[in-house]
Amino acid sequence: MRTMKAAVFLRPGKISLDEKPIPVAGPGEALIKITTTTICGTDVHILKGEFPVEAGRTIGHEPVGVIAELGAGVTGYSVGERVIVGAITPCGQCHPCLDGHQAQCGGKAAGGWRFGNTIDGAQAEYLLVPHAMSNLELIPDGLTDEQVLMCPDIMSTGFGGAERGDIRIGDVVVIFAQGPIGLCATAGAKLKGASLIIVVDSVESRLEVAKRLGADVAIDYTKTDPLSEIMRLTNGRGVDVAIEALGTQQTFESCLRALKPGGTLSSLGVYSGKLSLPLDAFAAGLGDHKIITTLCEGGKERMRRLMNVVASGRVDLEPMVTHRFKLDQIEEAYELFANQRDGVLKVAIVP
Amino acid sequence: MRTMKAAVFLRPGKISLDEKPIPVAGPGEALIKITTTTICGTDVHILKGEFPVEAGRTIGHEPVGVIAELGAGVTGYSVGERVIVGAITPCGQCHPCLDGHQAQCGGKAAGGWRFGNTIDGAQAEYLLVPHAMSNLELIPDGLTDEQVLMCPDIMSTGFGGAERGDIRIGDVVVIFAQGPIGLCATAGAKLKGASLIIVVDSVESRLEVAKRLGADVAIDYTKTDPLSEIMRLTNGRGVDVAIEALGTQQTFESCLRALKPGGTLSSLGVYSGKLSLPLDAFAAGLGDHKIITTLCEGGKERMRRLMNVVASGRVDLEPMVTHRFKLDQIEEAYELFANQRDGVLKVAIVP
Amino acid sequence: MRTMKAAVFLRPGKISLDEKPIPVAGPGEALIKITTTTICGTDVHILKGEFPVEAGRTIGHEPVGVIAELGAGVTGYSVGERVIVGAITPCGQCHPCLDGHQAQCGGKAAGGWRFGNTIDGAQAEYLLVPHAMSNLELIPDGLTDEQVLMCPDIMSTGFGGAERGDIRIGDVVVIFAQGPIGLCATAGAKLKGASLIIVVDSVESRLEVAKRLGADVAIDYTKTDPLSEIMRLTNGRGVDVAIEALGTQQTFESCLRALKPGGTLSSLGVYSGKLSLPLDAFAAGLGDHKIITTLCEGGKERMRRLMNVVASGRVDLEPMVTHRFKLDQIEEAYELFANQRDGVLKVAIVP
Amino acid sequence: MRTMKAAVFLRPGKISLDEKPIPVAGPGEALIKITTTTICGTDVHILKGEFPVEAGRTIGHEPVGVIAELGAGVTGYSVGERVIVGAITPCGQCHPCLDGHQAQCGGKAAGGWRFGNTIDGAQAEYLLVPHAMSNLELIPDGLTDEQVLMCPDIMSTGFGGAERGDIRIGDVVVIFAQGPIGLCATAGAKLKGASLIIVVDSVESRLEVAKRLGADVAIDYTKTDPLSEIMRLTNGRGVDVAIEALGTQQTFESCLRALKPGGTLSSLGVYSGKLSLPLDAFAAGLGDHKIITTLCEGGKERMRRLMNVVASGRVDLEPMVTHRFKLDQIEEAYELFANQRDGVLKVAIVP
Repeated sequence: MRTMKAAVFLRPGKISLDEKPIPVAGPGEALIKITTTTICGTDVHILKGEFPVEAGRTIGHEPVGVIAELGAGVTGYSVGERVIVGAITPCGQCHPCLDGHQAQCGGKAAGGWRFGNTIDGAQAEYLLVPHAMSNLELIPDGLTDEQVLMCPDIMSTGFGGAERGDIRIGDVVVIFAQGPIGLCATAGAKLKGASLIIVVDSVESRLEVAKRLGADVAIDYTKTDPLSEIMRLTNGRGVDVAIEALGTQQTFESCLRALKPGGTLSSLGVYSGKLSLPLDAFAAGLGDHKIITTLCEGGKERMRRLMNVVASGRVDLEPMVTHRFKLDQIEEAYELFANQRDGVLKVAIVP
Repeated sequence: MRTMKAAVFLRPGKISLDEKPIPVAGPGEALIKITTTTICGTDVHILKGEFPVEAGRTIGHEPVGVIAELGAGVTGYSVGERVIVGAITPCGQCHPCLDGHQAQCGGKAAGGWRFGNTIDGAQAEYLLVPHAMSNLELIPDGLTDEQVLMCPDIMSTGFGGAERGDIRIGDVVVIFAQGPIGLCATAGAKLKGASLIIVVDSVESRLEVAKRLGADVAIDYTKTDPLSEIMRLTNGRGVDVAIEALGTQQTFESCLRALKPGGTLSSLGVYSGKLSLPLDAFAAGLGDHKIITTLCEGGKERMRRLMNVVASGRVDLEPMVTHRFKLDQIEEAYELFANQRDGVLKVAIVP
Repeated sequence: MRTMKAAVFLRPGKISLDEKPIPVAGPGEALIKITTTTICGTDVHILKGEFPVEAGRTIGHEPVGVIAELGAGVTGYSVGERVIVGAITPCGQCHPCLDGHQAQCGGKAAGGWRFGNTIDGAQAEYLLVPHAMSNLELIPDGLTDEQVLMCPDIMSTGFGGAERGDIRIGDVVVIFAQGPIGLCATAGAKLKGASLIIVVDSVESRLEVAKRLGADVAIDYTKTDPLSEIMRLTNGRGVDVAIEALGTQQTFESCLRALKPGGTLSSLGVYSGKLSLPLDAFAAGLGDHKIITTLCEGGKERMRRLMNVVASGRVDLEPMVTHRFKLDQIEEAYELFANQRDGVLKVAIVP
Repeated sequence: MRTMKAAVFLRPGKISLDEKPIPVAGPGEALIKITTTTICGTDVHILKGEFPVEAGRTIGHEPVGVIAELGAGVTGYSVGERVIVGAITPCGQCHPCLDGHQAQCGGKAAGGWRFGNTIDGAQAEYLLVPHAMSNLELIPDGLTDEQVLMCPDIMSTGFGGAERGDIRIGDVVVIFAQGPIGLCATAGAKLKGASLIIVVDSVESRLEVAKRLGADVAIDYTKTDPLSEIMRLTNGRGVDVAIEALGTQQTFESCLRALKPGGTLSSLGVYSGKLSLPLDAFAAGLGDHKIITTLCEGGKERMRRLMNVVASGRVDLEPMVTHRFKLDQIEEAYELFANQRDGVLKVAIVP
């Protein structure tokens, strides 16, 4: 049996590189040889034991690779083609998928998120892709691995915050937190036509990247009170859409307080602990507010669209790759990424 | 100076009938002589001091009447015509109104709700209507006062819960609480094409009315656990849309727990105290949920549409008028309504 | 080789019962034994040579049956289960399907319509179902074949005209032509909350059925000018949504002329010959009109929803089955149906 | 009586500068002193007699100016403030306005378009603004007249083509014709997140401007067949959205032929003569197509949003002002503009 290296969750606090058998593509599946992958904030939640996965699970859900093997019934692709696969891998054929809820595939909450969660993931030399017909998307000629590395998760998620928040031309939008997801939400807000984009974080380097991606005003909340500043900038009107990109009570609540009556809170964070709705900001339920959560849109059509955005040059997320590691160095990569050392935004990991 | 009788909020616990000057219609305003009005749950909140209004304010926001006087610039209407006016009176001309947020007129939370809140209301012999051009709607021939008495508030609000919840043909919908608003939400869910409508309350008579208005399954939560029953009825799938029609943590939370991944919580209640989002039911923010609050759509176009629904016979809400009072008896009417005595749903009050 | 009977298109003017091999379910496919099927107006277009299909093609796209065989990879179903399959059989996994355009599966116009068009259809003893995982839907207990016989095509199409026309509570809707599709559009308009539904046809019996399904006003265009009557009924305002359900210049144009400025023409007909947009009715392009065409939504989620509507009793289309035939009598059935003899609406055909 | 100069339509072929009384602001009205205005393609239709207006009508619907007088009931503004007013002046208070159809104000086709059509327009020293409360919008500090001159009509119209076409992130969009409206549609398509924008025209200078505003591919249809090129660029897939910006059978039809199944034709042109729907491109009505026409969104909220876009620097339309004239020279300006001499895009006219 051929084996491969894989980053495996062992127990809270411990992800290590391990040897595992290389999977074989069954009917409807494809095996891809990973050429580049990365680490996500969610992987850090898993590492810390905040999001439970079973021991022995290979982690990672952001694959760029080459088709190594096609299972029975997977047609229209060839071994050797360069592909990406979304973090979310909808089957396309269950009731929720057919109803447009592909991230909730199978009708379980977050059911479309399989990689590094309910099946083995992408931080390995090989990755078995389920529902390959719905999920393999060829990389357009001329795009590098790093150029498309953000498509499977953070670009899809961040843009999704702007899309499902239904940002319109001329809107004022605030994004709370400018980690990788928040930065992508900023880029998405610009793509959707917001005319004033306000971002809030405390890390100077992230605020700088945010400005390059479309932020008009960057607020360091350790120096300026965001809500006062937002109300000043909007003449007391509040924002049309507030995007939460961290997953804390404070950012969630700040979003709600920043909204105009009738505004939309688009939530991207993964929350833990408790979450409450302050009734003054929520207008006791009379404010015609919308609160919309978004997991991440997957599937090959989504990947096609996102790579088109990259190819068009509309958005350049490659500068978000601040560090590069070999798969052998993955524990070191986690150490850096989990502790947000050295101005890290995203790491590229190459088997 | 001619005077009239009006039900006036004096202090928490006290609404009394008082004498006030009959208002005069200024530019853009109209004076209507009230022929029938009613009491709303929100009025009871005011009575109890849970929703603050200034002392001396005439209460009530559900007017049916006859045009008594038209101010300068109000054209296309004649004195003597029978009209209704929505509980929400948008100006139609401010930025939020022009942007479709008419209930948030002026950009203040619930800014479109003026009657019995920021200006004198409808539980009186006469009512001064602001922004008359946007708000006076003629009653079609053949409809009685009581037939259209639900249009200004509860029909608009309840239907709004179904509309903004975006109920689709074939949806499963649950409505928690079957007071007047919840009953109208039930009727609205049927009008929007839901194929399975589940309602939850503990008052047998309300569950009976709910069945007449479209509920397929009525759950008395004192006898049956609603969530188990909902999951049984949906084969564990959950509902597409859950409508909250009371304004408590328990009903809000039950709605969230009843939802399928990707489902919508449409909230109509006025909340007080605290409101929290249980993260297990909220899938930690990963469930593609929507939470949508709705005040109440006003304006004459809304009233026109709702009266058309009444005229068509699609929905008959007249049976909801369970008791009738003279304006002189308004304190007695409040006493009955606030304590939900004698199976009361709505009262008709005639000056 | 086992054989079966099948209604086969031979040449324009000729569909005959033939013997064909019983298909074998390949990977991802299912074989169903037809228990009831029907004839559609589109089949008559095929018969007349107005819509081309290749010689030898088995006709029909409205199957009710029992699972006879499941191909490799088709899981969650068992042989012997009663199922329906939509006229449109999306794969669920191509780019257009994943983007919500399931009727345009594969990116070809009407690409999701395979049965009796690009592959053999349902007027036979057995039917091979492609993409079975996306398309087989179990019939709920207690529903008869005839109760669900309208779901695969005309109910989905007709309701789709109401849904994609975005009918809202309180709308005035006109439906031109009350054949089976138009009648279902009428039922759909009612389900969506229209408060005034006007239908136009010349066949008295069809107008009668329309009234039972929700029409408020039935216009026999041989006796009354529909446009004058529509304008009279709407006080010159025009309708919010006009549904075209025949496929002729006259009905298309009448729809456009019946619309209010800003109204929506929802088109269901299959047009032949020429189609022009009268610029006066089209306001030279300045009327904020929408013209929306709808093929038919398929897939098992759609079938689940439609059968829920049937099960709820909201709509009863069984009376539309006016005639019953054995498969052996299919030529006779075509003769009756194509010539609209004997008040026929839909025929049930039983192998 | 004080008089002013005004460009007046006399008869087909003749618009001349005339003396007229300066209007007086009645209730709800405002008088503005025009500081800059411009000529629209529609004005040329009027000049040529293709769009009928009554003799003596002052032409023009794109005003930038200063408040000179406020009628009774117009509050929140002061004489001397710099404002723009949209080409479309909704009342905000009629049924269609309250229903979101503001361009169809009053329920007449294009009823919201009053200036230079049903009332006197902006090519004059003074302009009387109806429904001033809905329509006067202050110009943000720091923006020049020419920077906001495109907001009242062509920016609102062009962006509207992108907005109502519902362009999504990653869409491929084609715009047929790159006159001022088409150029604004191009800018709007980019603002909405299209990743591949194809434009078609024959004037090299317009194609150049299109590229600066966001076009990725510019096709000169005199040299390259647009449809072949579009199909090549999309691998035979067709475009998601096609915007028509001229008003001819050829561009309308080309849009339809360029669409993918399920695509949207967003029509901005003013058509004359005949318009037909080629059934092959229309898939006989089975292609799930949408055809959506858009007049132009007006009202002060729209103007506020558009000026925010200008202020943000997202879009710079000032280079579209290619020529400048005094009001005294208006006949000369018409001569240049109507004949598209000297690379003219838009002219600025200063009284």
